[in-house]
Amino acid sequence: MTRPSSKIRVLSLSIAVIVPAWLAAVGCVSILAAESDEPRLRARNLGIVIGSHEPGPLNAITDVSGVKVGHRTLISGSGPLKPGVGPVRTGVTVIIPRDDVWHRKVPAGFFVLNGTGETTGLAWIGESGFLEYPIALTNTLNVPRVADGVMSWMIRQYPEIGITDDTLTPVVAECDDGRLNDIQGRHVSEADVALALDDASTGSVREGTVGAGTGMVSYGFKGGIGTSSRRLTVEEGGYTVGVLVNANHGRRNELIVDGVPVGRFYDAHAQTSEKPNGPLADIAVPGAGEGSIITVIATDAPLDSRQLTRLAKRAALGLARTGATARHGSGDFMVAFSSAGVIPHYPKERTYQLTHLADTHLNPLITATIEATEEAVLNALTTATTVVGRDDRRADAISLSRLRTLLQEHAH
Amino acid sequence: MTRPSSKIRVLSLSIAVIVPAWLAAVGCVSILAAESDEPRLRARNLGIVIGSHEPGPLNAITDVSGVKVGHRTLISGSGPLKPGVGPVRTGVTVIIPRDDVWHRKVPAGFFVLNGTGETTGLAWIGESGFLEYPIALTNTLNVPRVADGVMSWMIRQYPEIGITDDTLTPVVAECDDGRLNDIQGRHVSEADVALALDDASTGSVREGTVGAGTGMVSYGFKGGIGTSSRRLTVEEGGYTVGVLVNANHGRRNELIVDGVPVGRFYDAHAQTSEKPNGPLADIAVPGAGEGSIITVIATDAPLDSRQLTRLAKRAALGLARTGATARHGSGDFMVAFSSAGVIPHYPKERTYQLTHLADTHLNPLITATIEATEEAVLNALTTATTVVGRDDRRADAISLSRLRTLLQEHAH
Amino acid sequence: MTRPSSKIRVLSLSIAVIVPAWLAAVGCVSILAAESDEPRLRARNLGIVIGSHEPGPLNAITDVSGVKVGHRTLISGSGPLKPGVGPVRTGVTVIIPRDDVWHRKVPAGFFVLNGTGETTGLAWIGESGFLEYPIALTNTLNVPRVADGVMSWMIRQYPEIGITDDTLTPVVAECDDGRLNDIQGRHVSEADVALALDDASTGSVREGTVGAGTGMVSYGFKGGIGTSSRRLTVEEGGYTVGVLVNANHGRRNELIVDGVPVGRFYDAHAQTSEKPNGPLADIAVPGAGEGSIITVIATDAPLDSRQLTRLAKRAALGLARTGATARHGSGDFMVAFSSAGVIPHYPKERTYQLTHLADTHLNPLITATIEATEEAVLNALTTATTVVGRDDRRADAISLSRLRTLLQEHAH
Amino acid sequence: MTRPSSKIRVLSLSIAVIVPAWLAAVGCVSILAAESDEPRLRARNLGIVIGSHEPGPLNAITDVSGVKVGHRTLISGSGPLKPGVGPVRTGVTVIIPRDDVWHRKVPAGFFVLNGTGETTGLAWIGESGFLEYPIALTNTLNVPRVADGVMSWMIRQYPEIGITDDTLTPVVAECDDGRLNDIQGRHVSEADVALALDDASTGSVREGTVGAGTGMVSYGFKGGIGTSSRRLTVEEGGYTVGVLVNANHGRRNELIVDGVPVGRFYDAHAQTSEKPNGPLADIAVPGAGEGSIITVIATDAPLDSRQLTRLAKRAALGLARTGATARHGSGDFMVAFSSAGVIPHYPKERTYQLTHLADTHLNPLITATIEATEEAVLNALTTATTVVGRDDRRADAISLSRLRTLLQEHAH
Repeated sequence: MTRPSSKIRVLSLSIAVIVPAWLAAVGCVSILAAESDEPRLRARNLGIVIGSHEPGPLNAITDVSGVKVGHRTLISGSGPLKPGVGPVRTGVTVIIPRDDVWHRKVPAGFFVLNGTGETTGLAWIGESGFLEYPIALTNTLNVPRVADGVMSWMIRQYPEIGITDDTLTPVVAECDDGRLNDIQGRHVSEADVALALDDASTGSVREGTVGAGTGMVSYGFKGGIGTSSRRLTVEEGGYTVGVLVNANHGRRNELIVDGVPVGRFYDAHAQTSEKPNGPLADIAVPGAGEGSIITVIATDAPLDSRQLTRLAKRAALGLARTGATARHGSGDFMVAFSSAGVIPHYPKERTYQLTHLADTHLNPLITATIEATEEAVLNALTTATTVVGRDDRRADAISLSRLRTLLQEHAH
Repeated sequence: MTRPSSKIRVLSLSIAVIVPAWLAAVGCVSILAAESDEPRLRARNLGIVIGSHEPGPLNAITDVSGVKVGHRTLISGSGPLKPGVGPVRTGVTVIIPRDDVWHRKVPAGFFVLNGTGETTGLAWIGESGFLEYPIALTNTLNVPRVADGVMSWMIRQYPEIGITDDTLTPVVAECDDGRLNDIQGRHVSEADVALALDDASTGSVREGTVGAGTGMVSYGFKGGIGTSSRRLTVEEGGYTVGVLVNANHGRRNELIVDGVPVGRFYDAHAQTSEKPNGPLADIAVPGAGEGSIITVIATDAPLDSRQLTRLAKRAALGLARTGATARHGSGDFMVAFSSAGVIPHYPKERTYQLTHLADTHLNPLITATIEATEEAVLNALTTATTVVGRDDRRADAISLSRLRTLLQEHAH
Repeated sequence: MTRPSSKIRVLSLSIAVIVPAWLAAVGCVSILAAESDEPRLRARNLGIVIGSHEPGPLNAITDVSGVKVGHRTLISGSGPLKPGVGPVRTGVTVIIPRDDVWHRKVPAGFFVLNGTGETTGLAWIGESGFLEYPIALTNTLNVPRVADGVMSWMIRQYPEIGITDDTLTPVVAECDDGRLNDIQGRHVSEADVALALDDASTGSVREGTVGAGTGMVSYGFKGGIGTSSRRLTVEEGGYTVGVLVNANHGRRNELIVDGVPVGRFYDAHAQTSEKPNGPLADIAVPGAGEGSIITVIATDAPLDSRQLTRLAKRAALGLARTGATARHGSGDFMVAFSSAGVIPHYPKERTYQLTHLADTHLNPLITATIEATEEAVLNALTTATTVVGRDDRRADAISLSRLRTLLQEHAH
Repeated sequence: MTRPSSKIRVLSLSIAVIVPAWLAAVGCVSILAAESDEPRLRARNLGIVIGSHEPGPLNAITDVSGVKVGHRTLISGSGPLKPGVGPVRTGVTVIIPRDDVWHRKVPAGFFVLNGTGETTGLAWIGESGFLEYPIALTNTLNVPRVADGVMSWMIRQYPEIGITDDTLTPVVAECDDGRLNDIQGRHVSEADVALALDDASTGSVREGTVGAGTGMVSYGFKGGIGTSSRRLTVEEGGYTVGVLVNANHGRRNELIVDGVPVGRFYDAHAQTSEKPNGPLADIAVPGAGEGSIITVIATDAPLDSRQLTRLAKRAALGLARTGATARHGSGDFMVAFSSAGVIPHYPKERTYQLTHLADTHLNPLITATIEATEEAVLNALTTATTVVGRDDRRADAISLSRLRTLLQEHAH
C-alpha cells in the first residue's frame, strides 16, 4: 500500500532557511514533505540540552579546526522502484580531517560496535594508527563506486600514487538506504564524490536529508546526517570534540530523547492529541530492515590512535542514550581522529615528536564524546525532512511539535 | 575529614528482612547504616520498570536454569586504616554456570569496554569459546588469592588437575574497594572462596552490600551486587537472560535512573526538601577513584561464543543508560555464557553437535541483555546499605524516598 | 634504467603445457620471458616436499569439495608507464566457497597479520561468523571496481538484493602490482570480474602469472597465485585443507625454501656458477615496495568461525617458513572458511544444528594449514613466469635449475 | 616405566662454568643429568648463526639498557608424584623493564598467538599502552601466588598502593611444567618472587633449566629460559632488540634448527650413529601435553604501544622458524616494551612529549625481533640441562654433539 499523494506537501517558505541549497538545484522539492509546515530545528533550538559540556560555536564537527564537510545529494524520480533506474534518494557525505591530510596524516582509531556493515580501510587505520584520506559516507551498494571516486580525486591531487610505492585504501562507510532509494542503481558516481570533496568546507554543516543521509531512516523517522560538538573549559584543556553521524538505525519504539522514551509515546500521542496524519502503518519502515549508524569523531586534543580508539568506543554509549540497541542487522562503526598531531609521510628523519594527552586527563573528552554523539543523533532526526521514496514509501520527519509536547509532558 | 560517628546509625528492625543473614554472624551491624530507617527495595519494587521485556520469576541471574550464586562477606574493624590489617569491608561473589561445568563446559564470550582493570582467564575463553570454571568477583588486590582459592576448590573436586594434562586458568574479575576497605590486606582467603562456592545456590540472589559488593561505591552511593533478568515470550523463543553486576563505577552527577538524571538533582534536592544528613561533602568518594563494573550475563538461549560476545557488547549499552561513561580509570568487563550448549571435556569422539540460534533471531536477546543490565545496576544501588569503612569514610546508600520523589517529579 | 629488450625471450614450446591458455588469447607472449627456456614446475615436481602430511589429489584449494577458482588475466601494452593507460599487467582471481553460497553460507574467520592493505568485508565475517560471497583478489587500486563487479554479479543471480533487506559487502583482497602494472588505470572491469566468476571451476588451478597474480612480485622474483593442499589420514579425520595465496611479498634475501635460505645464496650463485642473465641490478624490485600476501584457506572439516580464525592465524606460521617477516608495508591478510557447515539465509526456524570438530582434535588441521601455506607460496614462485611490465621493468621468474642446484647443495 | 637411576649422571666439572650458581645451594645436582658429560653451550657457540643482524654484547634481553632479569629456581625431592608435596621442579623468572617502572612506565604492547594459557594484566596494557610492573614468568597453577608476590613486593616499595587510588594488576605469564613438577603444590611462594625481584640484575642472563624454565620441556627436549638480542647498525638507528623466552612448547618431530628439521632426524640418528642413551621411549613427554611459550621483547627504539604490538606479532614468525605450530593446547603469548619512552605516573601536566620512530623505519626492528626470538628458543634448548622429575620422568637435554653432527650433515 502506498501513501496517498495528497498527503505529500510542498515545503513551505517558512523553512527555507534550513532547506539545503541543493533543493533548488535538483528541482524536486515535491518529493520532500513535512508532516506539517513546521520548520526543522536542531535539538538545542527545541530546548533539548544534552549533557553538561558546552557546544562549540557551530555545534558541529567543524568546530574542530581544519575539519571540512561536503555533501552531494541525489534526488530524482518517484513512484515504483525500477531496480537500477530509480527513484533515487541517496548521496555522499565527506569529512576531510585537514588540508593535505595525505602528507600531514592525522592520528586515528576506530571501534566496531556491530559489524553488520562495512567501513573500508579500517585495517590500515588500525595498523598505522593514522588516517590519510577523507572519510566518505554513502549507501551500502555504493561503497565501491564512492571508494573509486575517492581514489580518482586523490590521484588527481597526488599523481604519484600508484607510480611510486604510495597506494590507497580509502575509508568509506555505509548505511543501507534501500528502504527509500534504488540502491541497486549505485547512483553516486565518481563525479559526485569529487563534487562533494571539492565543495567541502569548514563552517556550519547541513544536516538531515542531505548527502549520504538523503535516504536514511532512523528510529522509524526520517534520519540522516547530524552533528554536534563540545568545547571543554580551559581547566579541562579547552579542547573541542566534534561528532558527525549518519543515522539510519533503530526502531521507533526504541527512541529516547534526553531520557524520555519518546518512541514509546509518539504514536499513541498522535492518536489522542493530534489529528493523525494518515494511517501510521504507511510509514516506510517495512520488514527486518535494521539500518546502521556511522559515527565520525574529531578532536583537537593531542590523542594518539590508542586513545582515539578509546573515544570511538565511547560513542557507543552516546548512541545507547538515544535508545540504540545495536540490533543484529545494524552496522555500527565509529572512526575517530585528532587534528592535533601530524604523522609525516615517508619521513626522511627516523623519528618525530608528538605531544600526548595523559590518559589521566581523558575523562572530559570521554564525556564530551558521549554527549556530542547523543546530540548529533537527535539533530539528525530533528533536522531531517520527510522523504517519499521508492514505491511511494514515506519516511516522515519526526514532528517537532509532538516532540516538544512529549518532552514537556515528561520533562525532567 | 571523617564522618562524625553520631551520624552512623544502627539498622532498624524494620529492614531486617533484607539484611543479609551474615550480618548477625559477623556481629558488626553498627558499621552499617542507612540515611534513614527505610527498608531497602529492589528497583521494580520502587515502581521503576525498565524496558519492555518481563523479568523472570526471581528477576535474577539465577532465573537461568542451573546457575548458582554464592557470596562470602567480610566486615570487621572500624576507624583509621591500618594497611594490611583493617578495617575490612570486602568479600567474594561466585557465579557457577552449571554443575560440573568442568566436564560440561558452557559456551562463553566476553567484551572489554574499558580495560583499566583485570579479569583473569579471558584469553582461554576467547581461544576455546567456552568457560569451564565458576566466575569469581572480588577486589583488585585480592584477585590472586581468590584465583588461588578457585584452583584449590577445583583441585579438590578434580584431583587429576595438574597431574594429567588438565590445567586451570581461573576467571576472577575485580573492582577496587579501597575507598572503604583495607585492600592491601587481601583479606579474602582461600577458605572464603571455598565457602562462597560451597554455599552457592540457585534461587534468589542477595544484592547490594554483600560478597564482592561489600566495599563497592557506585555513582557516589553505596554500590555492590545487583541482578536482574528478562524472559522472552514464547514467540521470541521463551529464552531467559540473566545479568549480575558488581557496581563500583560512576560519579554521582552521572547517575540516570530510567531516563531521569537523578544524579544531577539528588544533592540539590536534599538541600531544599529534606533535612540534610550531615554535610554531603563527607561522602566517601574522594580523589580520582573511578571504580569499575563487572557484568556477568547468563542465558539459556543456544548461543555460541561469537554470539555471546555480541551480547557481552550489548551490556555496555545497558550501562550507558544508567549514566555510565566508562571513565578512564574504570575497568568495565563483561562475560557472557550460555547454559544451553555443552562443550565436552577431552572428548573421544572427534565431533559433537550443537544447536545454534540463528543470528536473525537475536534481537530480543539483545534488548533483554540491555534491559537486565540497566536494572541490575539500579538494583545494586537500591538494595545496597550504607557502609562506613576505613578512616570512617561513609558510602551512603541512595535514599529511596528521595529517589522516589525525584522520579515522581520527573516522571515520564 | 630499463632492461634491454634483447634479454626478453619468447617462451619456448617446451613449456607450453603449463603456459596458461589465455596467453594465446591475449596474443602477447613476447612480454613474458623466462631466464632460460626451462619449463615451470610446481615445487613438489622439483622434489621439494614440505612437511609430513600428504597433499590432496590436485594439491590445490580445489581439493576441498565444491570450491571453485576462476581467473581473469589482463596483459597488454609495453614500454613506459602512461598512467591510466598502460602497460597492463594485472587481473582478478576469485574463490567461490560453494555453489549458492548466498543461501548456503559457509562458516568463516580471518586474521590480519599486518594491516598495511585492505580486505573489504571483514567486519561482516567477524560479526556473522560466515562468508556468503565469493572472495575476489586483485590489485590495490582496483578493489572498488572489483567489489562493484562482485555486486553486479551477485545482483544478477539474486535480484532481490537491495530490494528486500538483503545487502552486500563483498570480500575483496588486494596486493599492489604497481611495480609492473599501470595500477592507476584500474583496468579490471566489472565485466572481467563476471568472466572470472562465470569461468570459475573445480579441478586444477592455474598458478603463477595469472589472474590477480599477473603483476605480483615476491621475494624479488615473479610471484602471483600459488595453491596447495593437505589431506589428513582417516585416523586424523580424513579432512582436507586447501590454501591459495597471491604472493607479492618479501625481499629476495629473505626467501627460505624448505629451510634453505635460498634468497641469500641465489644471486651469488649466479655469479659463480652460471652465466649471469644480464645485470642483476636490473631486476624489477625498486624502492621501498614491500608487497603483500593474501592467503585463503578452505577446509571440509566442520569448523566454526572461532576455529577458522585459529587456522587463519596459523597461515602466518607457514608464511614465516618461507622467510616472510611481514614487513611494515606488507598487507598480510588470511581468510578461512569451512565447506562442512551450512549457515542458513534468513531461516524461518529459530535454530539450526551444526556439527563441530572438538578443538582437542584440531592439531592435524593446524599443521596441514601451515604446510599448505608454505607450499602454496613456493608454488607461486616456481610456476610464475617472468614478466616485463611498465617502464620495461622485469620481474624474473626464479630459475628452477638454480633453485634445484641450491637445494641439492644445501640439502637436508 | 621409569628411567633407570644408573642412567642419571652427575654433571661433570667441565661444565661448571655454565651450571647455575643455585645448583650448589639446592644441593640436588643428582637430579640433573646430561646425556653425556658435554658442557652446555649457547647456539651461537655451536656455530649456529641465525639471521643477518648482529647480537648485542651479551646476546641477551639485558642488552637493552636498564632491563634486569632475575630467577628463583626450586628443585627438591624425587620419585613418585605426591600431589601438593613434590617433587619440585619449578621456579619464577622476572623481567624488570627499568628501575622505578612504576613511576616511569614503559610503552608496551602484546599479542596472543594462541590463548590456551594465561598472561594476567594484559587488559591494562592494552588500554593504557604501558607496562608499570615487572613481568613474572612461572608455572600455570602458580600464577596467582606469583601475582600475589609481585603485589607484596610492589606494596613494599610503594606503600601508597591501595591507599590512594593506585592499584595493581600484575603481569604474570605461565607455562605448564606439570610434566616434571608437582604443579598442584604451587611451590613458588611470595618470598621466592621477592628473591627473584631483589636479585634481578643487568648483565648476562642464566638460561635453560633455571627460574620459570626449571620444569619446562620444549620440542621433546628439556626447555626453559632462553634469550638473545640484535643490535642494529648505525644506519638502521643503532637500536637494540632483546628477547627472552620460556620455552615449553612443541613436539620433537617439529623442531627446526636454522632451517634444518633436526627433530625429524634426531631419534633416527641416535639409533644408527650413537650408542643410544637408554630406551628413548623413556623421555618425559607423555600424553597430549602441548606446553606453551612466553616471549618477552624489549627494545630501546622509541616505539609506542601500537608499534610494540606489531613487534609482538613478529615474534610468532620467529617461533615458526623453530618449527612451532602453536598447537591447540599451547599458550603462546608475546609481550613487548620499549625502554625509550617514559609515560609519567599521574602527571600534573596535562600533556607530555614522546619521540616516535616512523613506521617506515620499522623493518630492521621487525627482522631483529624475528631473529632474536628464533635464537632465544634455540638457546633455551642448547643451554638447558637434563632434568629428572616427578615419577622419575626424564626430560633430556638435546645432545649438542648430535645436534652439531646433524647440522653439519644438513648444512646450508
